[in-house]
Amino acid sequence: MAAQQNVGVVGLGLIGGSLGLDLQARGCWVQGLVHRHETAERAIERGLVSAVSTDPACLASCDLVILALPIPLLLKPDPVLVDALPKDAVVTDVASVKAPVLGVWRDCHPRFVASHPMAGTEQAGVEAGRRDLFKGRPWIATPDGSTDSDALSSVKALASGIGCLWKTAAASQHDQAVALISHLPVLVSAALLRAVGDERDPGVRQLAMDLASSGFEDTSRVGGGNPALGVAMAAGNTDAVLKGLAAYRWSLEQLEEAVLNQNWEQLRQELERTQALRPSFLDGKSVSSD
Amino acid sequence: MAAQQNVGVVGLGLIGGSLGLDLQARGCWVQGLVHRHETAERAIERGLVSAVSTDPACLASCDLVILALPIPLLLKPDPVLVDALPKDAVVTDVASVKAPVLGVWRDCHPRFVASHPMAGTEQAGVEAGRRDLFKGRPWIATPDGSTDSDALSSVKALASGIGCLWKTAAASQHDQAVALISHLPVLVSAALLRAVGDERDPGVRQLAMDLASSGFEDTSRVGGGNPALGVAMAAGNTDAVLKGLAAYRWSLEQLEEAVLNQNWEQLRQELERTQALRPSFLDGKSVSSD
Repeated sequence: MAAQQNVGVVGLGLIGGSLGLDLQARGCWVQGLVHRHETAERAIERGLVSAVSTDPACLASCDLVILALPIPLLLKPDPVLVDALPKDAVVTDVASVKAPVLGVWRDCHPRFVASHPMAGTEQAGVEAGRRDLFKGRPWIATPDGSTDSDALSSVKALASGIGCLWKTAAASQHDQAVALISHLPVLVSAALLRAVGDERDPGVRQLAMDLASSGFEDTSRVGGGNPALGVAMAAGNTDAVLKGLAAYRWSLEQLEEAVLNQNWEQLRQELERTQALRPSFLDGKSVSSD
Repeated sequence: MAAQQNVGVVGLGLIGGSLGLDLQARGCWVQGLVHRHETAERAIERGLVSAVSTDPACLASCDLVILALPIPLLLKPDPVLVDALPKDAVVTDVASVKAPVLGVWRDCHPRFVASHPMAGTEQAGVEAGRRDLFKGRPWIATPDGSTDSDALSSVKALASGIGCLWKTAAASQHDQAVALISHLPVLVSAALLRAVGDERDPGVRQLAMDLASSGFEDTSRVGGGNPALGVAMAAGNTDAVLKGLAAYRWSLEQLEEAVLNQNWEQLRQELERTQALRPSFLDGKSVSSD
């Protein structure tokens, strides 16, 4: 990162607050912008930012502004916020869907870079931000032909500075990949909870609750998570999620067919394949593959 | 548990071996029966049992015999084994499906008790057995009208003695509940791995592998597990698994419909419901509810 940088962070939830902490630790001066006075006070108490305001004009001196806003706010940006962004600053976002955000923001700001730091999101709000949330995590940017290459380099430097692994991809590929590994699992997992919750025999339902152990616990975890986040994912990435659901339904039907036909050799081959597939998706895979 | 008991354990994999260790620690004399000489030697080296043999006649002096065999062997029992079981001994099993086992074994032995200690099963074989595997875990028996009540009490005493939480249920209810919380998740989770593995765009597939994190890791865990175990579950509990799959498909379709219609209010309500449902399935739920 260059000498001292003035970074604006719009929204101080888990991602914005954590960025504020890490960027200050890297020597940046961080200007926070939030909606409510109570949030502003608490952000200062927690030391999330160097200064905070509820007035978008506070961003005037920023070299780089990170929009750490929920997807719906990002897709229908407040014109006052758009007007307050310095025209020569680099502007980036942190949303988990990229094509729709890029579609809106490439017309809102000349130096916008669509990006997505991938870090845990189970907690929310001004109390959630914490140090080192991003260390070792991927930060994916999705530039297109109109993306300013110097702006892209600035976001890369910022991401690398807080320990992220930098990647770039086409926005559509990012969105489809994230639908498969992040948005689809929420629905797959929620449907499992729903199916067991809808069991009609109360004796079976109670027994299922009594007997459920780590296998069910793991498979149901993301389906029992933050509903607002699940909705935002599906609403922001609808086409890719529907495509993922169709692929998933087909995939499940193949397994169901093997069970229905009592073709245990086919089921064994399928499960051997999924057993062999899984390690490629685990953290540390690139480290352990050499 | 009564003074010294002679307990036979047939099969010394994870469940049989762990039972051997715990029962010896509780003062039982444990006779192991295995198929292969190498397994017998290793079982003694590991101290899994007090004595071991490959000859079913070794069970002659046992008061209680636990059949810790894979489901297929239990459903087509070796007549030599059946003949070698002392007629006045209590006989029980540990399989994760109960109605088919009870159907076969109620005609094989007059004092058979169908039961299922629910403990982790990721490892297998003679090296897998370990102390305290069952502590705090449910042990469910599924008696029917023909079950000997003294035999049932003996199995209860044994289960409680090694720290299990004793329950009874109808075999059909047990099988449906276990299909929902244990067998169905394997297929739901495997279908997710399969769907992502089948993604046609190699760029998306690679990005999915690079970006997958804890949410995908948890949701895919049981689908990437032991294929033989997954097949045994589906083959042993086919009807209940198919019923569970049908319920699951219906459940997923409701969520898919909400996404397709962009009915975000409906999706939010669904995800709020699954969020509220999940704690009832977690370990320690009965402790934390008071």
